[in-house]
Amino acid sequence: MDVVLISIVCGVAAVIYGIITSRAILAASPGNARMQEIAKAIQEGAGAYLNKQYTAIAVVGVVMAALVALFLGIVPAVAFVLGAVLSGVTGFIGMNISVRANVRTAEAARGSLQGGLTMAFRSGAVTGMLVAGLALLAIAGYFYALVSSGLEPTSRAVVNALVALSFGASLISIFARLGGGIFTKAADVGADMVGKNELGFDEDDDRNPGVIADNVGDNVGDCAGMAADLFETYVVTIGATMVLIALLIGGGDAAKLMTLPLLACGVCIITSIIGTYFVRLGGGSIMGALYKGLIVTGLLSVPALWFATAAIFPDMNAVIGADPAIVAAQGREAVTVAGVVGGFSGRELFYCMLVGLGVTALIVWITEYYTGTNYRPVQSIAKASDSGHGTNVIQGLAVSMESTALPTLVIVAGIIMTYKLGGLIGIAFAATAMLALAGMIVALDAYGPVTDNAGGIAEMAGLDGEVRQRTDALDAVGNTTKAVTKGYAIGSAGLAALVLFATYTNDLKEFFTSVTIDFSLSNPYVVVGLLLGALLPYLFGGMAMTAVGRTAQAVAQDIRAQFRENPGIADRSVRPNYARTVGLVTAGAIKEMIIPSLLPVLAPIVVYFAITAVAGQGNGFAALGALLMGVIISGLFVAISMTSGGGAWDNAKKVIEMGAYGGKGSPAHQAAVTGDTVGDPYKDTAGPAVNPMIKITNIVALLLLAALAAH
Amino acid sequence: MDVVLISIVCGVAAVIYGIITSRAILAASPGNARMQEIAKAIQEGAGAYLNKQYTAIAVVGVVMAALVALFLGIVPAVAFVLGAVLSGVTGFIGMNISVRANVRTAEAARGSLQGGLTMAFRSGAVTGMLVAGLALLAIAGYFYALVSSGLEPTSRAVVNALVALSFGASLISIFARLGGGIFTKAADVGADMVGKNELGFDEDDDRNPGVIADNVGDNVGDCAGMAADLFETYVVTIGATMVLIALLIGGGDAAKLMTLPLLACGVCIITSIIGTYFVRLGGGSIMGALYKGLIVTGLLSVPALWFATAAIFPDMNAVIGADPAIVAAQGREAVTVAGVVGGFSGRELFYCMLVGLGVTALIVWITEYYTGTNYRPVQSIAKASDSGHGTNVIQGLAVSMESTALPTLVIVAGIIMTYKLGGLIGIAFAATAMLALAGMIVALDAYGPVTDNAGGIAEMAGLDGEVRQRTDALDAVGNTTKAVTKGYAIGSAGLAALVLFATYTNDLKEFFTSVTIDFSLSNPYVVVGLLLGALLPYLFGGMAMTAVGRTAQAVAQDIRAQFRENPGIADRSVRPNYARTVGLVTAGAIKEMIIPSLLPVLAPIVVYFAITAVAGQGNGFAALGALLMGVIISGLFVAISMTSGGGAWDNAKKVIEMGAYGGKGSPAHQAAVTGDTVGDPYKDTAGPAVNPMIKITNIVALLLLAALAAH
Repeated sequence: MDVVLISIVCGVAAVIYGIITSRAILAASPGNARMQEIAKAIQEGAGAYLNKQYTAIAVVGVVMAALVALFLGIVPAVAFVLGAVLSGVTGFIGMNISVRANVRTAEAARGSLQGGLTMAFRSGAVTGMLVAGLALLAIAGYFYALVSSGLEPTSRAVVNALVALSFGASLISIFARLGGGIFTKAADVGADMVGKNELGFDEDDDRNPGVIADNVGDNVGDCAGMAADLFETYVVTIGATMVLIALLIGGGDAAKLMTLPLLACGVCIITSIIGTYFVRLGGGSIMGALYKGLIVTGLLSVPALWFATAAIFPDMNAVIGADPAIVAAQGREAVTVAGVVGGFSGRELFYCMLVGLGVTALIVWITEYYTGTNYRPVQSIAKASDSGHGTNVIQGLAVSMESTALPTLVIVAGIIMTYKLGGLIGIAFAATAMLALAGMIVALDAYGPVTDNAGGIAEMAGLDGEVRQRTDALDAVGNTTKAVTKGYAIGSAGLAALVLFATYTNDLKEFFTSVTIDFSLSNPYVVVGLLLGALLPYLFGGMAMTAVGRTAQAVAQDIRAQFRENPGIADRSVRPNYARTVGLVTAGAIKEMIIPSLLPVLAPIVVYFAITAVAGQGNGFAALGALLMGVIISGLFVAISMTSGGGAWDNAKKVIEMGAYGGKGSPAHQAAVTGDTVGDPYKDTAGPAVNPMIKITNIVALLLLAALAAH
Repeated sequence: MDVVLISIVCGVAAVIYGIITSRAILAASPGNARMQEIAKAIQEGAGAYLNKQYTAIAVVGVVMAALVALFLGIVPAVAFVLGAVLSGVTGFIGMNISVRANVRTAEAARGSLQGGLTMAFRSGAVTGMLVAGLALLAIAGYFYALVSSGLEPTSRAVVNALVALSFGASLISIFARLGGGIFTKAADVGADMVGKNELGFDEDDDRNPGVIADNVGDNVGDCAGMAADLFETYVVTIGATMVLIALLIGGGDAAKLMTLPLLACGVCIITSIIGTYFVRLGGGSIMGALYKGLIVTGLLSVPALWFATAAIFPDMNAVIGADPAIVAAQGREAVTVAGVVGGFSGRELFYCMLVGLGVTALIVWITEYYTGTNYRPVQSIAKASDSGHGTNVIQGLAVSMESTALPTLVIVAGIIMTYKLGGLIGIAFAATAMLALAGMIVALDAYGPVTDNAGGIAEMAGLDGEVRQRTDALDAVGNTTKAVTKGYAIGSAGLAALVLFATYTNDLKEFFTSVTIDFSLSNPYVVVGLLLGALLPYLFGGMAMTAVGRTAQAVAQDIRAQFRENPGIADRSVRPNYARTVGLVTAGAIKEMIIPSLLPVLAPIVVYFAITAVAGQGNGFAALGALLMGVIISGLFVAISMTSGGGAWDNAKKVIEMGAYGGKGSPAHQAAVTGDTVGDPYKDTAGPAVNPMIKITNIVALLLLAALAAH
C-alpha cells in the first residue's frame, strides 16, 4: 500500500502545482477598467451557466445515486458521488481560472507574445494538473480507504466501487460535454449568423448582444466540459484496468499489479509538471513551444514508467500472476496468465506502456496533419472554398471521413502489439499509459479557450491591433491542440472499450455461470446488438446537431429583437443586454442536453430486457455485449471524423483569412465561414460528447450485471 | 427442375415486357427538330461515356476472370463472365431506353401530365423488368444448365459458380455505380457552380457548356449505374440464399428448397408487370399514382408467394429438410434443421417472405418521411436555410444521422422475427422476398432520370412554361423514389450480409476443419477486423467525395475557359462545345473510379494475410470474418445517412423553390442550393456505391476461402 500512498502524494503534488500556479496567474495585472468590466461579464455568465448546469445534473445525479445505493449498496453509492462531485469540481475550478486568465493573457500579450503564451499556457496547465491530480486522488484515495478498512483489493466490493466511481465521473461528463458543447456552439453560430452575416460586424464586436455568450461558451464548453470529459476518461481507463486485473489475475500478484496503474499515473504527473516548464518560444513557432513541453514529458515518462514498474516488480523478467513453482516446473511457455500463453512480465507491461506513449505521439501527429494549416487536407478545403459554399462543405466532409483511416490503423496496430505482449492486461496498460499523460495534454487544450477569450477581450476593449494579432496567432494553434485532445481521448477510448468489454464478459462468467452466452458473430442477436450499438452515436450525434441548430436560431432571434427594441445599440449609444442572451443560451443548452444524455444510460437496459424477453437471457447478454462493441466501433469513426473535420474546416478559414484565395471578405472567405459554422457543432458538440457516451453505455452494462446478480 | 423452368419463363416474360414496352415508347413522337437535336447530344454523350466505362471495366474484368479461372476453374469463370456481361447489358439497354424516352416524355408532357407520367414510368418499367428478368435468367439459367449437365445442386461446383456469378455482377456494379455517380455529380456540381452562381443562368440553360454533361449524367449515373447496382443486389441475394441452403440443409429437400427463391422471384416478376398497369393519376397525386402500382404488386405478391411455396412443398406444415421418420419418431420439437430447433416448414418460410415484404413497405414509408416535402425533416432543413448556408448544412447533417434510426430498428425487428421463424434460412428468404419486388422498385427509380432529362430538354428547346412545370412536378417525386430504392437496396444488404457471413462461416467449417477459429467478440483480432471493416465505408466515402469535388472543379474550369475563348456563347451567337465538357467528365470519372473500387476487392485479401502472418491462420480467418461484419455494420449507417440526407436536402430546396422562405433567388434559396450541392455526392455517388462495396468485400472473402482450400 506504500505504492498507493506514493501515487496519492503525486496527486497532491498536482493540486499544489495548481494552487501555486493559480496564485501566480491571479497576481498578474488584469488590465484596464474596460477589460476588467468585460472579463467580469464573462465570469458572471459562465458562473451562472455552470450553477444552473450543475443544479440540473444534481437532480439526475441524486436519482442515480439512490438507484446505485438501492441496487448495489452504500459503498458504490459513495464512490458514485465522489466521482461525480470531483468531476464537477475539476470543471468548476478549471473554468474559474480560465475566466480570470483570459483578461490577464490579453494584458500580458500587450507586452509580448511570450508573455501571452506563458499566461495562457499556465492557466491551461492548472486545469490539466487538476484533471490528472484529482482523478488520481479519487481512485487511489478511495482504493486506499477501502483496502485499509480490510477489504481485499480484488474483492467484488472494491470492483463495484471502482465501477461506480467511473459511473459518477462519466455521468457528469456527458452532461457537461453536451450541455457546454450546445452552449458554446449555439452562442457562436447564433452570434455569427446575425452579427457577421446580417450586420457585417467583425468577430467579437461589442455591439453584438451575443458576444459575451460566445465568450462564455469557450469557457463552459471548451474548458469546463472538456475537463470533465478528460477526468472521466482518466477515471474510467485506470478504473477499468484495475478491475480487469482483479478479475483476471490469480495469486498474490493481483493486488500488487493493481497498484501499478496508480503509480504509473503518479510518476507521469511529475513528468508533466516538469514538462510545463519547457514551454517557451525560443525563436520557434508557437506550436513548437507547446510541443517542447509535450516531448519533454513524453521522454521523461519512459524512464519514469520503467522505474515505476521495477519498483513494484523488482525482477522485470518474472512472470506476473503465476505461481513461481509452476513456472519453474513447466517452463515459461506452458504458463497461461489472464489468457496469455507464456504469461507476461513487468518488462512486457513496460513495453505495452511504451506502445501507449507511441500511440499518443502518432495520434498527435496525425491530428496535426489533418487539422494543421500547412498540410494537404486543410489546404484542399481552402482551395475548394474558392469554388463556393457547396464545394467547401463537400471537401470538408471528404476530409472528415478520410481522417479516420490513420488513427484506426494506429489503434489496430496498438491492439495487436500489446495483446501479443500482455494479452488484455497489456491493452489495458497501453490505455493507462496514454491517460497518464493527461495532465500535459489537457494543459495544451485548456490553453485554447483562454487565448480565444483574450482575443475577444482585446477586440472589445479596443486594444492595439498588435495585441489582437498576437492572440490570434495563439488561438490558431489552439484549434489544432483542441482537435488533438479529442483524437487522443477517443483513441484511448478505443483501447479502453476493449478492456471494458473484457470486464463485462468476465463479470458474466462470474455472476451467471449457468447461462450459456454465444458472443460469436454467427449469433444473429450479436448482430442485432452490434447494429443497435452502432446506431447510438448516429442518433446521439443527430440530436446534438439539431439541438445546436435550434438554440442558435433562438439566439439569432434574440439578437435581432434587441436591435429592433434598441436601435441605439448600433451606434453604441445603448449597451446591449448581454445577460439576456446568456440566459437564453443557458436555458436552451440545459433543456437540450437532457434527452440525448439519457440515451446511453437507458439503451443498454432497454436492449437487455427486450432481447431477453424475445430470445432468452443468454441472447439478452449476448446482444448487450454486442451493443457495447457496436457503440465503440461506430462511435470511433463518428467522433474522429467530426473532431478532425471540424478542426480542418476552422483552420481552412484561417488560411483564407491569412490572405489566400482573396482573403477576408472574399467569396472564398464566405464559403469558408460556412464550412467553419458546420464544423462548429461537429467538433465541439456532437463529436467530443461521443467519447463519454461510449463509456457510459459500457459502465451502465457493468452496473446492470452487478444489479441483476445481486437480486 | 420444372420449377426452375417456370422461373426461366417468368424471366423471359420480363424481357418480352421490356421489348414490347420499348417498342411502344419508340413509336411515340420524339418532338420537334430542336428537341431531337438536344436528345441526340445527350444520347451520344451517354453512349460515349458508357463505351469508355465498359472498356475500362473490361480490362479489370478480364484480369479477374483469368484469376477466377486460375484459382477456381472454368465453370466459375464462365459464371463470373455471365454475371459481369449481363449486369453491363442491363445498364446499357436501360440507359438506351432512358435517353430515348426523355425527349418523348417532354413531348407527351406537352399534351398532359398523365401523358408525361405514363411515358416516363414505362421507360422506368423497361429498366426495372430487365434488371429483374435478366438477373433471374442469369441465376436460374446457369443453375439449370449446371444441374442438367449432371452436377448435384448442392455440390461445391454449383456453389462456387453461384458465388462467382455474384462476383461478376458486383464488380461491374461498383464500377458503374461509382463511375456513373462521379460523372453525374461532377457534371451537376461543376455546371451549377459556374452557370448558376457565377453567370446567373437557370438550371438547364443551353448556353451552359456543362448542360449536356449534366443531362448525360442523369442517365449514366441514376439509370445505368443504378440498374447495375440493383442487378447485383438481386443476383447476390438470391445466389447467397441458394448457397446457404446448399451448405446448411441436409436430405433431399435441399435441392427442392434451392428452387424456391427462383420461383418466388419468378412469380413476383409477374405481379410486378401487372402492377405497372395500375400506375395512373386518377385525380390523386403523382406519388399516389406510383404507389398504386407498388401496392398492387405487393398485395398480389402475398398469394403468389403462398402458391409458389405450396407448389414446391405441398404440405405447408411439414418440416423441411428433416427426415420424416425422425420427425414422426421424435416429435417436432426435437428436430433441428439448419440450426433451428423444431425445424421450419413451408408455412414459416412464407411468413419470413411476408416479413420481407413488410420490411420493404416500412423502408419505403420511412424514406418518404425523411425525404418527402410534407414532413418535419425536409421542412426543418428548409426552415434552417432561412438563417444561412451553415445552418442549412448543420440541420441536413442532423437529419442524415437521425434518418438511420428507424430503418435500423426495422431491420433489427426483421432479423429477430425471421430468425425465430426459420433461422438463418428464414433471414435469407426475407431478403429474397425484398428483392423479388425489384422489378417494380427499379421502375419507380428509373422513372426519375427520364423526367429530369425531359425537364432539361423542355427548357433548352424553349417549350411552353407549362411543360416545364409538369416535368418539374414529376421530377420532385423522383427525388423521393430515388432515395427509396437506395434505402431498400441497403436495407436488403443488411439482411443479405448476415446470409453471406453465415456462408463464410460454413465454408470455413467445411474447408478448414483443423483450424480453430474464435469469432467471439472477446477475441481482439475480431475487434481488429470489425474496426478495419468499419473503416472501409469511411475511406471509400471520403475518396468518392474527393473525386466528385476534384472532377467538378475541372468542369468548372472548362466552362469558364469556354466563355473566355468564345464570348459569343453568352448571346447565343456561338454554340458551346458540349462534347468537350462531356469528354472531360468522362475521363475524370473513369480515372477516379478505379482506386476506390479496388479497395473492397483488396482489403479482405490484405487483412487475411496480414493477420495470419502476425497471429496465425485461425485469427486471420476470425479477423476476415469480423471485417465482413464491420463493413456492413458501418456501411449501413454511412449509406442510409448519405442517401436519405441527400434526398432531404434536395427536396428542402424544392420546398423553397415552391415559394417558402422567399422562394427562388432569396437568401434562403441560396443556402438551400448549397445544401443540395453537398447532398448530391452524398446521395448519388458515395452513399449508393457503399451497397455494392459491402457485397464485394463479402464475395471476395468467399472466393478467397475457395481458392485457399483448392491450393
